Amino acid sequence: MKLEMICTGEEVLAGQIVDTNAAWFANTMMEHGIECQRRVTVGDRLKDLVSVFKERSFEADIILVNGGLGPTSDDLSSEAMALAKGESLVENTVWRERLEDWFTRNGRVMPQSNLKQALLPETAIMIDNPVGTACGFAVKLNRAWLFFTPGVPFEFKQMVKEQFIPFVKQRFEIAGDVALRKYLTLGQGESSLADTLECIALPSGMTIGYRSFMPHIEIKLFARGEVAIGQLDRIETQIRSILGDAIVADDKKSLAEEIHSLMVDSGRSLSVAESCTGGMLASQLISFSGSSSYFDQGLVTYSNESKVRVLGVKPETLDVHGAVSIATVEEMAMGARGILDSDFALATSGIAGPTGGTEDKPVGSVAIALATKEGVYSQMIKLPRRSRDLVRSLSTAVAFDMLRRELLGQAVIVDYGSIGRFEK
Amino acid sequence: MKLEMICTGEEVLAGQIVDTNAAWFANTMMEHGIECQRRVTVGDRLKDLVSVFKERSFEADIILVNGGLGPTSDDLSSEAMALAKGESLVENTVWRERLEDWFTRNGRVMPQSNLKQALLPETAIMIDNPVGTACGFAVKLNRAWLFFTPGVPFEFKQMVKEQFIPFVKQRFEIAGDVALRKYLTLGQGESSLADTLECIALPSGMTIGYRSFMPHIEIKLFARGEVAIGQLDRIETQIRSILGDAIVADDKKSLAEEIHSLMVDSGRSLSVAESCTGGMLASQLISFSGSSSYFDQGLVTYSNESKVRVLGVKPETLDVHGAVSIATVEEMAMGARGILDSDFALATSGIAGPTGGTEDKPVGSVAIALATKEGVYSQMIKLPRRSRDLVRSLSTAVAFDMLRRELLGQAVIVDYGSIGRFEK
Repeated sequence: MKLEMICTGEEVLAGQIVDTNAAWFANTMMEHGIECQRRVTVGDRLKDLVSVFKERSFEADIILVNGGLGPTSDDLSSEAMALAKGESLVENTVWRERLEDWFTRNGRVMPQSNLKQALLPETAIMIDNPVGTACGFAVKLNRAWLFFTPGVPFEFKQMVKEQFIPFVKQRFEIAGDVALRKYLTLGQGESSLADTLECIALPSGMTIGYRSFMPHIEIKLFARGEVAIGQLDRIETQIRSILGDAIVADDKKSLAEEIHSLMVDSGRSLSVAESCTGGMLASQLISFSGSSSYFDQGLVTYSNESKVRVLGVKPETLDVHGAVSIATVEEMAMGARGILDSDFALATSGIAGPTGGTEDKPVGSVAIALATKEGVYSQMIKLPRRSRDLVRSLSTAVAFDMLRRELLGQAVIVDYGSIGRFEK
Repeated sequence: MKLEMICTGEEVLAGQIVDTNAAWFANTMMEHGIECQRRVTVGDRLKDLVSVFKERSFEADIILVNGGLGPTSDDLSSEAMALAKGESLVENTVWRERLEDWFTRNGRVMPQSNLKQALLPETAIMIDNPVGTACGFAVKLNRAWLFFTPGVPFEFKQMVKEQFIPFVKQRFEIAGDVALRKYLTLGQGESSLADTLECIALPSGMTIGYRSFMPHIEIKLFARGEVAIGQLDRIETQIRSILGDAIVADDKKSLAEEIHSLMVDSGRSLSVAESCTGGMLASQLISFSGSSSYFDQGLVTYSNESKVRVLGVKPETLDVHGAVSIATVEEMAMGARGILDSDFALATSGIAGPTGGTEDKPVGSVAIALATKEGVYSQMIKLPRRSRDLVRSLSTAVAFDMLRRELLGQAVIVDYGSIGRFEK
């Protein structure tokens, strides 16, 4: 069964809208074991629509078409489909009555333009839309069923879940179950991970994919069919034994999400003191609802004066060692922890660039400390200096990983592939 | 000249990634007066890639292909192009040397897999990539030039701007001059802006577009041809007089960017104290290099204790008025300003949701204050409670806009369309 998607609309093609419907659709179908094999995005020109409907109807078994069902003159999906099939548009009386009823219930007179939404190609099967004025419809052309859906995201999603998926399952055999596992990694590039894992012999039906979410690479282990799914545990064990500390979370989009859930479970409290990461640690955690249960405070002490006044860093420490040093960052962490006697405090101080580097401490040098009630862990790392954002987001990730490892009772300081470290 | 785009990659097709490169590309080309007429998204299957390259090469003049140039086994663009053209892959020695050099400069040994990135179809023109390991390339097939670019967004964007656009302009006549002006707005939705501006009679060749960058809507005024360009000033004046305070910056991606440039120019200093925005104010400013010249400190005082201990908020104020109140946020701003005697301090305290709202102070209630050496401005606003992220980012934007207006000598507190306000 070959599934494709056609996205219509000038605003999607021209990038005025990022096409989140498309991503959502592909993801949802994947979870039902159906891969979307091609997606074509076209504007609102009748000629382009007719040609893409015809063209893809020879290649696919089922084509989800999104958009172009509204009442305005640039909504052309129905007309284009009728032309592609060489048939006329006919008023669907059921939908016309539903429309009139809908407007009456909402205390409004139906504008003439909405009548257009009841005009469907002659052979179309009408598809109900309980949440909007655009009905969907399905038409068979050549090899394919073309299934038309509204562009409004919540109407679209409801129609896919409640009508499209049953429509597909009724007509096509869906091959086997699928399963997906995801691992978040830190400190290795995509190519180095791929090289490292190449030695694993994957059973048939299983694939490894990589996805970059700066500063992480996510590894996706995908299995199709019972046999492959049965091998997932064995392959996961191999991946874990090869990658070791590079895997920092399972099925999470960021380390912040992992820290959030570990901190909530731990019942302990956290303060952070940030220099180069400048609010990233705080902001990433506070993006999760419920972070107030553990997050005491975040102090972005960007200036030296602020490190002294707010965190109690000694002026001599700054003079002797500089702001970007193990000594300073340890005092920052201990100071931040002490103010509210938090269980933990993380601190960062580094040179995010692009300027500000020196020979001894080039751009990408970042000191990070974790203070606990018992003591303080610290390290000074060397990050790739590719961009200010990358230095900041990698520093944030390493800081979170130190806390994660502490919370799990593991060694706090470990090596991450391509991240170097200064001697203490 | 007919331009199309082909996006490759399982993760894009399967919706694991929302394809922001595609939207950015269409937008950027539009700004150069070139419309993208179709976009096809395919996965990493060799057969699919070969067939889409062949198929579109008969229809388009130029095709931008994005993705599939990495070192891993699922990066197949080069191989697919060679197959589509019926030629072999040949090592590009210039790029191979560049790769080796790149790894040497970064103190690493080049993994074997990266060698693949120097293999190009025999007739390809190599396209330099100064910021990554994937070179681009261009191949002529049938009617079209296929121009291959890396998937990593910053590499992709640089290649489009520095190589692709000149490549197109060299080979094709681009019809007429174009000009684009952009205005960042705050506090009105896209449809409300569009309704409000509908009364403006645009001259032929001029269009108004809207783009949502949460929490802002950007208005784009696009003119093609000398006559339309000559009318830009007149139309801009009309837009400004209609929208008034809703326009918060010209040609900037965010208010943080505007504040950064105003603060650098002003020579004054800023501290921030954040509760619900939790590091967003600090983090957005510190993302700009040079922010250390004015940014003193950012204090994310999430807990009440922290507001008292770090900022000197009076416990009675918290008891009587609550953390989300004008009284508290004014003390937060004055406290944050006082620590280092900064010229300005911004403070926020609100209920970002989804939980934590009360009848008096529902989710979306946010108190914001700006302290200066002379006094303090404050307001408590009611934001749409659609998402935690939206509440936080709108609060950040309103806070920045208060500072922006102060820096420009304008009234600090104004009405923004759909943002309500509590009586003081």
